[in-house]
Amino acid sequence: MMAEKYVYELEMKVRDYECDLQGIVNNANYQHYLEHTRHEFLTSVGLSFAALHEQGVDPVVARISMAFKTPLKSGDEFVSKLYMKKEGIRYVFYQDIFRKRDGRVVLKGVVEAVCVVGGRLGASTLFDRVFAPYLSSSAD
Amino acid sequence: MMAEKYVYELEMKVRDYECDLQGIVNNANYQHYLEHTRHEFLTSVGLSFAALHEQGVDPVVARISMAFKTPLKSGDEFVSKLYMKKEGIRYVFYQDIFRKRDGRVVLKGVVEAVCVVGGRLGASTLFDRVFAPYLSSSAD
Amino acid sequence: MMAEKYVYELEMKVRDYECDLQGIVNNANYQHYLEHTRHEFLTSVGLSFAALHEQGVDPVVARISMAFKTPLKSGDEFVSKLYMKKEGIRYVFYQDIFRKRDGRVVLKGVVEAVCVVGGRLGASTLFDRVFAPYLSSSAD
Amino acid sequence: MMAEKYVYELEMKVRDYECDLQGIVNNANYQHYLEHTRHEFLTSVGLSFAALHEQGVDPVVARISMAFKTPLKSGDEFVSKLYMKKEGIRYVFYQDIFRKRDGRVVLKGVVEAVCVVGGRLGASTLFDRVFAPYLSSSAD
Repeated sequence: MMAEKYVYELEMKVRDYECDLQGIVNNANYQHYLEHTRHEFLTSVGLSFAALHEQGVDPVVARISMAFKTPLKSGDEFVSKLYMKKEGIRYVFYQDIFRKRDGRVVLKGVVEAVCVVGGRLGASTLFDRVFAPYLSSSAD
Repeated sequence: MMAEKYVYELEMKVRDYECDLQGIVNNANYQHYLEHTRHEFLTSVGLSFAALHEQGVDPVVARISMAFKTPLKSGDEFVSKLYMKKEGIRYVFYQDIFRKRDGRVVLKGVVEAVCVVGGRLGASTLFDRVFAPYLSSSAD
Repeated sequence: MMAEKYVYELEMKVRDYECDLQGIVNNANYQHYLEHTRHEFLTSVGLSFAALHEQGVDPVVARISMAFKTPLKSGDEFVSKLYMKKEGIRYVFYQDIFRKRDGRVVLKGVVEAVCVVGGRLGASTLFDRVFAPYLSSSAD
Repeated sequence: MMAEKYVYELEMKVRDYECDLQGIVNNANYQHYLEHTRHEFLTSVGLSFAALHEQGVDPVVARISMAFKTPLKSGDEFVSKLYMKKEGIRYVFYQDIFRKRDGRVVLKGVVEAVCVVGGRLGASTLFDRVFAPYLSSSAD
């Protein structure tokens, strides 16, 4: 049996201004959904993205890949879920979005983030400590 | 005693991508908040902005004025409230946003909308009927 | 004869992602157009919005009103023009947008900005000096 | 000698509202830049994204991957370039963004698009014909 890997999830609802002239959510907004999910996850473990920035610690996205499976439309509710791994100095977030009414996969994304401290790429003992309970093993 | 005029309210939370380089919510996003509030109000009375559009009925904003009182920041929760009046063929939405933690006024807005049916400005018996229970008298 | 009051203008073109499910530019994007015009105007007189922020000087919008006259659509080119006055401690920008192909008025806006220095509302001798050549008399 | 593969390029400039509280362009906006570049490329070959949609032909993004190399900041000018290949029924756009002042790579992206006609995934003879002169061989 496959165990549920997700360590965080957030429910949201499409806002009409996020839809474009095709009548579906504009692709760039999915990146907003993924970012907001990661930042709310940070908040849930006691870290504030804005406060980190003021302390000179900036999580920065190095690479994103997204597969768009089912477009969201006006009024759709959805659940944005994530789990994470550490690979070298990168924190890799596996982020999937599901349409709420039928569980259909909307998007599957992988977001690789690194930590920039005082302008330099670096390891973050803070992140390592905070994320420890949430890291899936890379061997999974 | 002043009676509460608001007929609808919606709670939201600032998303970090809505903040700009000043570290506060970019002004254009308040227009998004106001629009989303009106559309959710429409939904609450049984109307879908997207479905209306497909039927050739488009509520269109003719005029907006907004006074910005207190900037919202990363992590702030807020309540967006509205009441409405009819003035001639215009539906006038009075929309105020309050910061949740202290009730402070964030923004006071007035949004005048008209109804475009099949490309022409017109009265909407549909809107008149649906909004009837929610209209404040203009003499208020 | 009416003299041309505008002191700055900027040409832009609608980007498809700025259109919403009604197939026209979403209203909030006009605020982006107006902001970008003001910031490019600042740049043209030697001021950088971002650099000002780093020095603790933040121009802040206190009030906006916009009348939406003709909606812009996919592919439309437009010209965004402005002139300004000083009223008390407020810098008032009169910003109008015209569709390029026929000169039709798209939007008429008035944006009142104040200057926040080190977190406090204040007069800005820097702005007064820089804007001096561009201020229309309030009696106009 | 490496031949230049790019078949289209577009110059743009960062707009301040595209920057977030880290003071750099928010990642989602790069997707906007890439989309706008593709749509302007379409326009340059005589196709309108909006007109296609009205005819029931919707180019849809199936997959995006982006590597973020150098963040753009307020005031930065950049060039967005693309070349494309056809792989099966997918049109694959290779899209790179360069900072103008020093040619530095900002972003390298790959965008896979498919064609939806009347709601169904399908080959598009229109696209095949129009894109023919611009397709790089997959063997490149």
